[in-house]
Amino acid sequence: MFFASDNWAGAHAAINDRLSKESTRFAAAYGNSELDKAVEARFNEIFEKDVSVYFVSTGTAANSLSLASIARVGGVVFAHSEAHVIEDECGAPDFFSGMRMVDVEGAGGKIDPAKLKHRMAGFPQDALHHGRAAAVTLTQATETGTVYSLEEIEAVTAIAREHALPVHMDGARFANALVALGTTPAEMTWKRGVDVLSFGGTKNGCWCAEAIVFFNPDLAKDFGYIRKRSAQLFSKTRFISAQFEAYLQDGLWLNLADHANAMASRLRAGIGALNSARLAWDTTSNEVFAVLSRASAEAARAKGSAFYDWPVPYAMKDLVGSDEILIRLVTSFATTQEDVDQFLSICGAA
Amino acid sequence: MFFASDNWAGAHAAINDRLSKESTRFAAAYGNSELDKAVEARFNEIFEKDVSVYFVSTGTAANSLSLASIARVGGVVFAHSEAHVIEDECGAPDFFSGMRMVDVEGAGGKIDPAKLKHRMAGFPQDALHHGRAAAVTLTQATETGTVYSLEEIEAVTAIAREHALPVHMDGARFANALVALGTTPAEMTWKRGVDVLSFGGTKNGCWCAEAIVFFNPDLAKDFGYIRKRSAQLFSKTRFISAQFEAYLQDGLWLNLADHANAMASRLRAGIGALNSARLAWDTTSNEVFAVLSRASAEAARAKGSAFYDWPVPYAMKDLVGSDEILIRLVTSFATTQEDVDQFLSICGAA
Amino acid sequence: MFFASDNWAGAHAAINDRLSKESTRFAAAYGNSELDKAVEARFNEIFEKDVSVYFVSTGTAANSLSLASIARVGGVVFAHSEAHVIEDECGAPDFFSGMRMVDVEGAGGKIDPAKLKHRMAGFPQDALHHGRAAAVTLTQATETGTVYSLEEIEAVTAIAREHALPVHMDGARFANALVALGTTPAEMTWKRGVDVLSFGGTKNGCWCAEAIVFFNPDLAKDFGYIRKRSAQLFSKTRFISAQFEAYLQDGLWLNLADHANAMASRLRAGIGALNSARLAWDTTSNEVFAVLSRASAEAARAKGSAFYDWPVPYAMKDLVGSDEILIRLVTSFATTQEDVDQFLSICGAA
Amino acid sequence: MFFASDNWAGAHAAINDRLSKESTRFAAAYGNSELDKAVEARFNEIFEKDVSVYFVSTGTAANSLSLASIARVGGVVFAHSEAHVIEDECGAPDFFSGMRMVDVEGAGGKIDPAKLKHRMAGFPQDALHHGRAAAVTLTQATETGTVYSLEEIEAVTAIAREHALPVHMDGARFANALVALGTTPAEMTWKRGVDVLSFGGTKNGCWCAEAIVFFNPDLAKDFGYIRKRSAQLFSKTRFISAQFEAYLQDGLWLNLADHANAMASRLRAGIGALNSARLAWDTTSNEVFAVLSRASAEAARAKGSAFYDWPVPYAMKDLVGSDEILIRLVTSFATTQEDVDQFLSICGAA
Repeated sequence: MFFASDNWAGAHAAINDRLSKESTRFAAAYGNSELDKAVEARFNEIFEKDVSVYFVSTGTAANSLSLASIARVGGVVFAHSEAHVIEDECGAPDFFSGMRMVDVEGAGGKIDPAKLKHRMAGFPQDALHHGRAAAVTLTQATETGTVYSLEEIEAVTAIAREHALPVHMDGARFANALVALGTTPAEMTWKRGVDVLSFGGTKNGCWCAEAIVFFNPDLAKDFGYIRKRSAQLFSKTRFISAQFEAYLQDGLWLNLADHANAMASRLRAGIGALNSARLAWDTTSNEVFAVLSRASAEAARAKGSAFYDWPVPYAMKDLVGSDEILIRLVTSFATTQEDVDQFLSICGAA
Repeated sequence: MFFASDNWAGAHAAINDRLSKESTRFAAAYGNSELDKAVEARFNEIFEKDVSVYFVSTGTAANSLSLASIARVGGVVFAHSEAHVIEDECGAPDFFSGMRMVDVEGAGGKIDPAKLKHRMAGFPQDALHHGRAAAVTLTQATETGTVYSLEEIEAVTAIAREHALPVHMDGARFANALVALGTTPAEMTWKRGVDVLSFGGTKNGCWCAEAIVFFNPDLAKDFGYIRKRSAQLFSKTRFISAQFEAYLQDGLWLNLADHANAMASRLRAGIGALNSARLAWDTTSNEVFAVLSRASAEAARAKGSAFYDWPVPYAMKDLVGSDEILIRLVTSFATTQEDVDQFLSICGAA
Repeated sequence: MFFASDNWAGAHAAINDRLSKESTRFAAAYGNSELDKAVEARFNEIFEKDVSVYFVSTGTAANSLSLASIARVGGVVFAHSEAHVIEDECGAPDFFSGMRMVDVEGAGGKIDPAKLKHRMAGFPQDALHHGRAAAVTLTQATETGTVYSLEEIEAVTAIAREHALPVHMDGARFANALVALGTTPAEMTWKRGVDVLSFGGTKNGCWCAEAIVFFNPDLAKDFGYIRKRSAQLFSKTRFISAQFEAYLQDGLWLNLADHANAMASRLRAGIGALNSARLAWDTTSNEVFAVLSRASAEAARAKGSAFYDWPVPYAMKDLVGSDEILIRLVTSFATTQEDVDQFLSICGAA
Repeated sequence: MFFASDNWAGAHAAINDRLSKESTRFAAAYGNSELDKAVEARFNEIFEKDVSVYFVSTGTAANSLSLASIARVGGVVFAHSEAHVIEDECGAPDFFSGMRMVDVEGAGGKIDPAKLKHRMAGFPQDALHHGRAAAVTLTQATETGTVYSLEEIEAVTAIAREHALPVHMDGARFANALVALGTTPAEMTWKRGVDVLSFGGTKNGCWCAEAIVFFNPDLAKDFGYIRKRSAQLFSKTRFISAQFEAYLQDGLWLNLADHANAMASRLRAGIGALNSARLAWDTTSNEVFAVLSRASAEAARAKGSAFYDWPVPYAMKDLVGSDEILIRLVTSFATTQEDVDQFLSICGAA
């Protein structure tokens, strides 16, 4: 009953097998092996476009170096106030890009287009003192378990396009969003105005597999130097490639995300039926936010469940009663129906 | 016959097995699992001291973040002119530490203590304009295949100590140096004045396993933030821990390095006996530098050998004839006697 | 009728005379002349404490380098959302300090202590992902023309002290605040918990005279290097010293600020009596914010008045009618009664 | 007898008068006054080209921000090993540009073109690990008092051009070099391949007047943001403009440099005739390097002379006897014949 985070899971067997196979041979380092090239080409198929792909070690690196690729002196990056780049990366995006993150509000973890416009107006062209608008970043799926519809993505990127700003997408849970929408990688990204993507595999069945995918080749032209200078060029790069090869083969990645999402649905349905718990807000990916009685939470933890308390958003301060807590539950490729049902049963009995 | 670099090898079976076992279970992320704690404790045993250990993704990260831990505004770091931090990391050490690398000469890839003293004299205390001496870094084994004796390490660290400067050791090939000297990890580091170590496992049988080991706890006190801000905190940290657990168990790491060194010895002996080749200089770790006839080099490559041409050092410009080239040959845990003998045989026949 | 900013004024005659006198002689560079030492000592008297004083070229430099002196990796600095360090310095504070500015709300341009506490709670100790609380900065007088009372300063610094965070004060208009409160420099700073101060002279009668004053000697210990590395060490430092000598002599600086404040009072009183204008909010330093009919504004500008439109704060969006604008009027040592009266008369007649 | 540095002098009367005149009036801040625009236009005349001009506070800022304008991630800048950007700016050029300074040797403080070529070869294209060649900077007049001929400038810039690298010139003593060569500003800069210039006025009669002059408009396009973000945008910019207006009027700047150079010639001639002193090497600008008997040096200092000991270059270690020292003597617009003659007379008598 590990619902603390999808990064508590191990690695999927197919991915592990591919790694094992890779361990026995020699190959060129620093991304120059045939495997590396083959996997890069595979990304072109996945995204129906010639893309530039660079592997890095962490999701924070993927986001930070993506933004570094579009760095402008004095630049500001517009992000949702709860975005990982603002809340959870210890300033790495600022450090690598030399830019400031500017928070934009919006319900459900999504940037509100009207509020984005208003925030941008604070950075008029040539107003040196304020700095200048340089990029927009959005998170898909969001930090609060929701998913932007294609129209919602378009509404944000359209504003960026009006100001000629590149758009980054933080796709740490890209696959979960993709299967939730039932769309294609191309539709969810460059066809909707995304220029560069953090494509995460770690949370969805890999050990360590994060890629930066450039749809806009201009942004990629110095990226080899950016990655090396940022200490993110693996010598044995092919162990990342091997993971991605297995991950992307025969739709494994989509199946894994589908499973995780289904487990989240099962959790949501179960919680909706309990007296001692209720959904805090609706979600559509592999994260569930619930208000739980303290008694249930204690019982669940006592019996081995792992999950995090979640800070109550200021705007929702009346949501949670004094004998209740807000929690986050995250499912993954490795979550089982038994895990879910057992957790619900413990909560229901408490 | 892959002698291009030790990072062309795959992973040792024992390490791969340990990873496979790890893949099937859940555990806490970001270094908080029991395995992570156990491996950290194992480092205490290896180094006979309570150390602080932090995993990072690359050797460049290990060096750069080590130096970031001792960063001083306006600081300069003294390093051998051929050191990896100067020659091969695209400025990452400067970027992460905010300091400048100042080159010191010395024969055989080793810092010459007299020249270090002289270089330091250019940065007298409170001479703001020049900047200030902030650290010394030395590489063990060196980039040119040699190994500092314990006395040679001490001679360098003694000068640093006189100026109260911390000492960093780049140990990308730490194990190879260790077994070459037949000493202990403690003797080769903190007992000889080293404060912080880049401890490399990747070149010696791991997939991706680099650790920063702090002997001086003062340097470690902010390091959690330094690593996270530098985008080097793996979510599934335990996949690094698992590799190190297997690597350090029952002396595997020493056996692997011993083997690599033995293969290099075999190469050296064989080359010494050839007419078409000779050693460029003597080495004692797993790197061999040879002057080879172009004919031999072409023959070897035609038959599948991989190795790099090496730039002829300016001071040795008469070393290499017009029909010869200087090459570097690197052995690893995965190099076989057959590889070595076949390579020598091809060269001898050409 | 120049009310655009106090930095549109020239330099006071006494300051200019002192500069002229300085121009004819030789003296040691880089702050090592006797004059430099004497002026530094003068700051000890002014602040009734042994302080460390460093001159820099701009107010942005003073703020940015002050924060650099307390830089911590992963650190965040709490500032009012309208603070100069957030709104008007193009990211320089972030660049020099390597830290992020985190905005705190509060009425009248002042940090609300309760909101500061709440914001700080988002950065609990050892929560690497969020970063860590590192400093608090407050602006005296504020960007909106108000002045913190001594008790209000204390309320902010007390919270910082609980978390062992240093406090910076942006004193670009320090003198205006000081005479508005009728207190002493010591009372308004270190006696109320301020550790480092940006002490501005430029807006109050100097050409270019900005000082960083350290009350906490620990923060100053590396500052020589910070300033030089930041390209802020003037060779002919004594031309700054000369300005400060005249500025601080016989209370000139206080008299100049008193005059500027008196002119602002006269403006406020006059505006209060007009039909075509009203005060937007109350101020106590040398800035006045007024809602003016567009007709009056046009008339005033047509007759040579200079002043800026001010963006209407979101929370005050109903303050300004469709035929009105919000403006900022700033007075200085060089503003005359005639300027004020003529401006009021034009507005009144329109 | 102040020969310590040309920055020990005050300001020329004409420059001081122009500042005094400026002090009594109001004008727009941040470089937007009519005076600012007029002085910028004056630079076009001086350089016979439409240039972009930006004022900054120090020579270190001029150099560092010039290099920041041509910053490339992973970039290296080739500079003479004794250049100010390497030796005397505490790492500021590295900090602001994010690039590394790579030293090139050459006699007389000038980059040796053959050695520059050789050094560049160490940074082949797309060799990520080494970094990449990004700029060349040369100093005119050099730090050792010599002056590049136009042909020598061309020889350096031609190599840069072959690699499509921008060229920066550190002209802290631009005027002294210019009058020494008897050429025009255009000939010594853009006509010889210079893209951006640090144009110094401070050492030659101003209080504080340093400009960055862009001949290549591409480099200037983001520079407004670079300067503001670097805390180098003066609010009362016009006090710099006023100095430059007087400085550039009626050839004042050339006359002042001519005088300084003439005083240096007088010193050189006098030293050549002494028994107790000799020239260390020949110079052609306003710096003189001499080997002096310790007795003479002590006598001169006892009678009020100020000058610095100079470190003996390693390659010249036999130049200076045990009872001698190497000194630097710098003349300025304010040096008088009497100063020179008195100094020579004291040395001669000792």
